[in-house]
Amino acid sequence: MPAIPAARTCEPGPLQRRYRDVRALSEALAAPLSDADATVQSMEDASPAKWHLAHISWFFETFILRDHVPGYSLYDERFPFLFNSYYEAEGARHTRARRGMVTRPTLGEVLAYRAHVDVAMMDALPDLPEDVRALAELGCHHEEQHQELMLTDMLHLFAQNPVEPTIWPGERKVPVDLPGQIGWIEHGGGQVEIGHDGTGFAFDCEGPRHTELLHPHAIADRTITNSEWAAFIADGGYRDPRHWLSDGWAWVQANGIDAPLYWERRDDVWTRFGLDGRRPIDPAAPVTHVSFFEADAYASWAGCRLPTEFEWEHAASAHDASGGNQLDRAGPVEPRPARGGPAFFGDVWEWTGSAYRPYPGFQPAEGAVGEYNGKFMSGQFVLKGGSCATPRGHARACYRNFFYPHQRWQFTGVRLAKDI
Amino acid sequence: MPAIPAARTCEPGPLQRRYRDVRALSEALAAPLSDADATVQSMEDASPAKWHLAHISWFFETFILRDHVPGYSLYDERFPFLFNSYYEAEGARHTRARRGMVTRPTLGEVLAYRAHVDVAMMDALPDLPEDVRALAELGCHHEEQHQELMLTDMLHLFAQNPVEPTIWPGERKVPVDLPGQIGWIEHGGGQVEIGHDGTGFAFDCEGPRHTELLHPHAIADRTITNSEWAAFIADGGYRDPRHWLSDGWAWVQANGIDAPLYWERRDDVWTRFGLDGRRPIDPAAPVTHVSFFEADAYASWAGCRLPTEFEWEHAASAHDASGGNQLDRAGPVEPRPARGGPAFFGDVWEWTGSAYRPYPGFQPAEGAVGEYNGKFMSGQFVLKGGSCATPRGHARACYRNFFYPHQRWQFTGVRLAKDI
Amino acid sequence: MPAIPAARTCEPGPLQRRYRDVRALSEALAAPLSDADATVQSMEDASPAKWHLAHISWFFETFILRDHVPGYSLYDERFPFLFNSYYEAEGARHTRARRGMVTRPTLGEVLAYRAHVDVAMMDALPDLPEDVRALAELGCHHEEQHQELMLTDMLHLFAQNPVEPTIWPGERKVPVDLPGQIGWIEHGGGQVEIGHDGTGFAFDCEGPRHTELLHPHAIADRTITNSEWAAFIADGGYRDPRHWLSDGWAWVQANGIDAPLYWERRDDVWTRFGLDGRRPIDPAAPVTHVSFFEADAYASWAGCRLPTEFEWEHAASAHDASGGNQLDRAGPVEPRPARGGPAFFGDVWEWTGSAYRPYPGFQPAEGAVGEYNGKFMSGQFVLKGGSCATPRGHARACYRNFFYPHQRWQFTGVRLAKDI
Amino acid sequence: MPAIPAARTCEPGPLQRRYRDVRALSEALAAPLSDADATVQSMEDASPAKWHLAHISWFFETFILRDHVPGYSLYDERFPFLFNSYYEAEGARHTRARRGMVTRPTLGEVLAYRAHVDVAMMDALPDLPEDVRALAELGCHHEEQHQELMLTDMLHLFAQNPVEPTIWPGERKVPVDLPGQIGWIEHGGGQVEIGHDGTGFAFDCEGPRHTELLHPHAIADRTITNSEWAAFIADGGYRDPRHWLSDGWAWVQANGIDAPLYWERRDDVWTRFGLDGRRPIDPAAPVTHVSFFEADAYASWAGCRLPTEFEWEHAASAHDASGGNQLDRAGPVEPRPARGGPAFFGDVWEWTGSAYRPYPGFQPAEGAVGEYNGKFMSGQFVLKGGSCATPRGHARACYRNFFYPHQRWQFTGVRLAKDI
Repeated sequence: MPAIPAARTCEPGPLQRRYRDVRALSEALAAPLSDADATVQSMEDASPAKWHLAHISWFFETFILRDHVPGYSLYDERFPFLFNSYYEAEGARHTRARRGMVTRPTLGEVLAYRAHVDVAMMDALPDLPEDVRALAELGCHHEEQHQELMLTDMLHLFAQNPVEPTIWPGERKVPVDLPGQIGWIEHGGGQVEIGHDGTGFAFDCEGPRHTELLHPHAIADRTITNSEWAAFIADGGYRDPRHWLSDGWAWVQANGIDAPLYWERRDDVWTRFGLDGRRPIDPAAPVTHVSFFEADAYASWAGCRLPTEFEWEHAASAHDASGGNQLDRAGPVEPRPARGGPAFFGDVWEWTGSAYRPYPGFQPAEGAVGEYNGKFMSGQFVLKGGSCATPRGHARACYRNFFYPHQRWQFTGVRLAKDI
Repeated sequence: MPAIPAARTCEPGPLQRRYRDVRALSEALAAPLSDADATVQSMEDASPAKWHLAHISWFFETFILRDHVPGYSLYDERFPFLFNSYYEAEGARHTRARRGMVTRPTLGEVLAYRAHVDVAMMDALPDLPEDVRALAELGCHHEEQHQELMLTDMLHLFAQNPVEPTIWPGERKVPVDLPGQIGWIEHGGGQVEIGHDGTGFAFDCEGPRHTELLHPHAIADRTITNSEWAAFIADGGYRDPRHWLSDGWAWVQANGIDAPLYWERRDDVWTRFGLDGRRPIDPAAPVTHVSFFEADAYASWAGCRLPTEFEWEHAASAHDASGGNQLDRAGPVEPRPARGGPAFFGDVWEWTGSAYRPYPGFQPAEGAVGEYNGKFMSGQFVLKGGSCATPRGHARACYRNFFYPHQRWQFTGVRLAKDI
Repeated sequence: MPAIPAARTCEPGPLQRRYRDVRALSEALAAPLSDADATVQSMEDASPAKWHLAHISWFFETFILRDHVPGYSLYDERFPFLFNSYYEAEGARHTRARRGMVTRPTLGEVLAYRAHVDVAMMDALPDLPEDVRALAELGCHHEEQHQELMLTDMLHLFAQNPVEPTIWPGERKVPVDLPGQIGWIEHGGGQVEIGHDGTGFAFDCEGPRHTELLHPHAIADRTITNSEWAAFIADGGYRDPRHWLSDGWAWVQANGIDAPLYWERRDDVWTRFGLDGRRPIDPAAPVTHVSFFEADAYASWAGCRLPTEFEWEHAASAHDASGGNQLDRAGPVEPRPARGGPAFFGDVWEWTGSAYRPYPGFQPAEGAVGEYNGKFMSGQFVLKGGSCATPRGHARACYRNFFYPHQRWQFTGVRLAKDI
Repeated sequence: MPAIPAARTCEPGPLQRRYRDVRALSEALAAPLSDADATVQSMEDASPAKWHLAHISWFFETFILRDHVPGYSLYDERFPFLFNSYYEAEGARHTRARRGMVTRPTLGEVLAYRAHVDVAMMDALPDLPEDVRALAELGCHHEEQHQELMLTDMLHLFAQNPVEPTIWPGERKVPVDLPGQIGWIEHGGGQVEIGHDGTGFAFDCEGPRHTELLHPHAIADRTITNSEWAAFIADGGYRDPRHWLSDGWAWVQANGIDAPLYWERRDDVWTRFGLDGRRPIDPAAPVTHVSFFEADAYASWAGCRLPTEFEWEHAASAHDASGGNQLDRAGPVEPRPARGGPAFFGDVWEWTGSAYRPYPGFQPAEGAVGEYNGKFMSGQFVLKGGSCATPRGHARACYRNFFYPHQRWQFTGVRLAKDI
C-alpha cells in the first residue's frame, strides 16, 4: 500500500486527514487480495476490487483534479474509459458486464495510480474553494460506499470458488444466548419531519427535508435472527406461495431459492460462507443476505409487514448512528448477536417496504455529479441503517440505501413492523 | 354469440342485468375475431382473447358455482387447469407463456362454455346470499378488466402481422384544433383523504381509506398530446440519457425504442397502428402506448415531474368518473382530442410517480380471491383515470391500476405535475 | 377443400393428374384442422399448417406462374413476403420465428389462394416448355416434403396442449408378436455406385452419381423397436455419459431428456402421444421421435454403430422404395410392426452416421431455386428411407433427408450397423 | 518457473527429456502473464492459462502417478474437481463456464503443483512399464495441444481489454512481395491410404489406417492471404447471402460479422490485434482467425470449394510436417508470408470440408482416457496442417484437428480446392 505523503504543511487539515484515512482503509481492505482476486468479476452486479480502487480515484481525478486544479494532466488517458461507472455525461465507458476482462492495468499499477492521485489531492486540498471542497467530501463518502461494495463483491467472488478460500481467519465465536422476544416500539401516528436537516454531509436523495404523515404502527426493537429464519425454513416458508409477492415467487421458482445466500446445509447443520470461510450459522446473530422478496415473505409469514422508510427513520432518529457493529478496520465482517437495548444501526441494512422514489421537491444536482442518485429511482427499495460492512460514520438516520428486490449479496436483513 | 337466457323470474334483478350486460360486451368485443385471432398469444404479457373469455367464466364457475351452488358440476374437468390465471391456491395451471398453444377447445367451444356458465349463473344469482353476491359483483368488475385487456391484447396481436389487418373500420377523422397551453391546477398542500370510502364496489387494494399529506404542487389540466410528443422526439428526447431513469435508458438502448409503441414513420409522417388499421397520428389527441420510462423522461425533458397517485386522486375526485372517452360498445377505441375543461377520466391511463404498494392497514382478503391484488405489489407503478378501452362505469378516482415501468401495450399516457 | 377444376382438355395429362393429386392430399391432411390449429406455431422449427399450405402455393406461383406465364398477376402482393421460406434471392420475408403471428389471412383465405393458383396451374401446365414442367415436377416433390412436415408439425402442436386432442381417432391395435433377433446383411467392402442415376426425379443434392468405397460391414435387416428402446431406458441408457457424444450428453442434461419425444410414463406404462391421442406404446413397432444423439447413444450401448449413408443406400437399392408403411391418405400415421423380410422404406427415417455434405462435383442449380438444398450442408446428418408420413412414391434409395442431431419431431428411428 | 530436477540417473532418458522440454515450454509461454492474466476466462470456449497449466498436470498426476505409481498421494485433494476438463468417468468437476472464478489457487500455487508433479514424474518415468510410458507420451502430446490453446486463449483475453496490451513486443516487419497466383496440384482420383500408419505417436481418431477413394480434383499450393481476403470484403463478400451456408449466414447476421476476428478498420487501414498488440495486417501473410463459415463462403465466392480431409492428407503426405512457421519458443506467434514452394504445415490450421467423424473401424480406447476424441464427433469440421502456434513436431499429415464451424479464435485459415 503506497503511503500517502503529507502535504506541504506540517499539519494536515481536517479534510486532508479525512481524505487520507478514507483512502487508507480502501487499500487495507484490498491488502489480502491477489492480483487475480482483485481482477475477476463474479457477476454483473459486482465489480472487481481493482475496479473499485481505480474508479474512486477516477472520481477524484475527474471532478476535482481535472476540473479544478490548473495544470493537472491525466495520469493515463485510457483510464477514464475504463473506470467511469455510469456517468453518461462523462462520455463512453467500458461495459459494466466486462469489467472482469481488464487484467491490465494490474493491481499494482492501479495502486500506483491511486498514489499519484493522492499526492495531487493532498497537495490541492488546502487551497480548493469551498464548493470544490464539498466535492472532495462527496468523494470521500462515495469511496466509503465502494468500500462496502468491495467487501460484498469479494465475498461473492470467493463464494463462487469450490475451494471456498478464507480471506481473513476469524476468531472462534463464543456462543451467546438467543435474544428474547421482539419488543415493539409503538407510535400513534402524526406528522413527522423526514430527510436531511442540513447538518453535515448527505447525498442529494436524502432531501429535501419535509413532513410525512405516519399512521399508527409498531416497529420491532431488533432484527430477525438466524434461528428465527431457520424456523421459517423449517415451516416450509420457501415452498408456500401464499407468503410471497408474485415476482418473488417467480424468483424463488426460477432460481431454486431455499435459504439465504451463502447458506448450505451440511451434515444436517446450516452453515454460511463468509470472509472467514464456511462455518455454522450463529443462531443469535441477525440473519443476512436475504432479498426484499425473502424479507417480505418472512414478514407475511410472521403476520407482520416491513416498516416504511419513514417509520424507520423516525424511530431510529433517537439512536446513535455511529454505534453498533459497523466497519472500523479491515477484517472478516459479519453481523453479531445484539447486546443491550434497541439498536438501529449496524449489522445489516434493513429492507423497508418503501420503493426508492424522490422526496417532494427533489432536484438532481447539475452536471455529471448530478447523475449520482436520481436516475436509479425506479424498481428499487429503500434500505436503512447500515451494516457490519459500512464504514463507521458513513450511516445516518436519513440515509437511503437502495437495491433491487431480488438482490441479496449485500449485508441485508429484516426488521418487522405492524399496524396498530 | 350465445344469448343469455332470462332466469326464472320474468324481470331480471339488477345484479342479473349487470351480469348479463357485462357478459354480452365481452362477446361483442370478440365478435370480429376468427378462431385463430382468438387463440394466438402475441407475447407473454398478453393473452389470447379465447383465454380471456374462458378465464373469466372459470372465475364465476369456480368461486360461485362450484363453491356456493349445491349440485353444480364442472362443465369440463380440464378447464380449471387451462383457465386459472395465477391463483396458486387453486392448484396447478397451464403456463402463462404457453396459453397460445391451446388451439382446442376452439373459440366456439369456449363460447358454449360461457353459455353454460351463464345459464347456471342467471339461475343462481337471485338466491345467493349477500357475501356471494358480492363475489358475483367482483366477478363483473374482474370481467371488465379483462375486456380492456382483450382490446389491448388484440391490438398487440394484429400489430405483429405484416399485413396489419383492420378489425373495425374506423370513421374518417375530422381534424381538430390543437388544445391550448396546459393549465395548472394548484394545491397548497395539507392532509387529504385517500382511498375508497366504502360507497359502491372497489378492489381490495383501493383501501383502507386513510389520510395522506400532500405537499404544495400543481397538476396539469390535460394530458400530453401526440403533437407535443412528436416535439419531444424531434428534440432528440429518445437519444439523450439525461432525461431518462437508468433502467429506462437501458430499456431504450436494448430495444431500440424511438417512438411510442405502434408508431412508425412512413413517408415523413408519423403513423400509428390501431384496431382500425394504420393511420397518421392525430396531433390533437392524447399520446398513448408510452411506458412509465417514456412518461418520466418526457416529464423530465419538460422540466416537470409525474403526479403522485395522491395528488392525482385528490384533483380528480371532483370530476365525473363516468365521463370522457371510455368504452361503451365494441369498436375501434382510441384516445380522442379533448373538448371543454379539465378531464381526468377516459382516453388514457395516466402514469403516476407512485410505486404500487399497499395502503396503511391493507390486508388481503382471505382465500384464493385474496390473491387478487396484493401479491403484485412490487416493481409496478400506479396508473389512474381509465382509458378509451375501459368499460364506462369501471373507473373511479380511487381506482389503482398498475403495470411494470416498461410496459406500454395498454392505453397509457402522461399528465404532468410540478412542485410549487 | 376447393375442387381443382379440370383444365381445358377433357383428359388431364400425367403432370396435371400428378399436380392435382398432390394438391388434393395436402388439403385432405389439413381437413380436420380448425382455423387456429392451422395458424399456431408450436416452436421455431415447426410451421403452421396454414403457412405450409400457402408456402407451397407461393412456390408454384413464383417460380412458374410469375416467371413463366405471361400476363399472370400475383393473387395478393403481400403474400410473397409472408410465404417465402428462405429464398434470399426472392427478397425480404417474414421472420420464421413469427409465422404463428399471422392470423390473417385465415385458413379459408389461404385455401382460396390455393384454388386460384390451382386454376392457373392446371390451365398453364399443358403448354409449359420442358424445363418449366421440370420446375412443376420439382414443386410437386417440394409439396410432398411439406406434407410430411405438416403432419409432424401438427403432431408437435397438439402435443403442447394439456388436453391432448385427438385429431384422427385411430383403430384399436391388435397385439403383434415381437420381431425376432436382428439379422445382419453383410458386405465385404469395395467400390459401389452412389447417388441418383438420372432416372426420374431427384433433388440436386442426390447427385452427381459417383463411386464410393465401402469397407467391410454388416447392416441390420430391421430397425430398433419400442420394446428394445424401453430396455435401453431400463438399463440407464439416458443416465450414463459413456454412451453419448459430448454434444448429445449436454443436450440430455440441459433438456432433461429421458425418453423419446412424446413418451410419458403413466401408471407404470410407457405411453406415447400421436395424432390419435395418447396410447400405450406398441412394443413391436419401430421406435420413433428419437434424435441422432439418442440413436448414436443406443448404437453405442448396443456395441454397434449407425450405418453410413452409403452402406444404407447400397443395401437398400435392392428393395422397393414404394413399399412398406408410407403415407397413402390422410389419417393417424404411425410406425407399425414389421412383417416379412428385410425392409428399408417406410415407418421411420433412419439416422445415418454421415454428415450431410455435398457429393463430389455437386453444383447448386442456378437462381433462387438453387438455394434449395446446398445451403443446408453444415451441422446436419443424413437420414434415409422414408417414414409413415412420407407420401408413397416420394422416397427412393438415393434420397437424402437431413436434420440437426438434436431434432426429433420427425418420424425418425434407428437401424444398427457394425464393422466386420 | 520452477526448475525440473534431473532424476536419479545422471543422464535423463529420451522420454524424460521429452517430458522436461514440453513442460518447460508451457511455463515459458505463461511467463509474461500476471496472476490475473492467467486466471480470467474470456469466454466459455477459452480457459484461463492457469487452468491449462494445472489441467495438464492433473492429467499426468491422475493417469500416471495416481494409477501407476505406488504410494503416490494427491498433491491437493481439491484439484481433481477443479482441473478435470471433461472426463466423465473421473467424476464430478467444476463447470467449464466458471473456470474464471477460481482465483485461488494462485498462479504461483499452480506452478508449485506443477513442480511437485514434475519431481514425481521424472522420478517415476525410468521405471514405468511400456503401456504407462505410452500414457506419458500421450500426456506430452496432450500438453502440446494445450500450449496452442494457451496462446489462442491469451490472445482472446487480451483482445477483450480496451487498452489492448502487448504481451510480447514484436519485431518490425519487413514488407514482402505478395505471393503469385495460386498454383494447382492436380490429382486424377483413385484409392489412397489414409490415417496413421503406426509409426510414432498418433491420437486414436487418426486411425485405423484405411483406404479412401479420391475423385479427380486440384488443390491449391498455398493458403489465402490477407490481401485476397481484403478483396473478398471489398467485393461485399460478407453481405451477399448467396456465398454462405444457411447456418453461416445466420451467424453473420446475428453477430454482425464483417471481417476476420481481431480485424478492425482504423483510419481506412485494416489492422489486426495480436500478441504483439494492434498492427496493420500484412497483405502477404496467410489470413487467419476465420471460421469454417467464412472459409466456405470465400471458397464459394472464388468459384472453388474447400478440400476434403483426404485430399489434403494425400497431398500433404509428401511434405515435411515439421517445416514451416510453427512454434519453437515463447513469443508473438503469427502467420508469415510464404517463401518457396508449396507448403502444407504451419502458419494456419486449414479448414477442410469434412465433418469430423470416425474412420471405418474406429474404436475409442478403454477407460477414462478413451473419452479423449471420440465423443466430440458431431457438429465439428476437420482442420489439417498445424499453425504458427502449434509446437513444432506435434503436427503430422494424418493429424485431425477439429472445431465447430463458427469458431475462429484459433489460428485458422483457408486453402482452396476444386473438382477437375
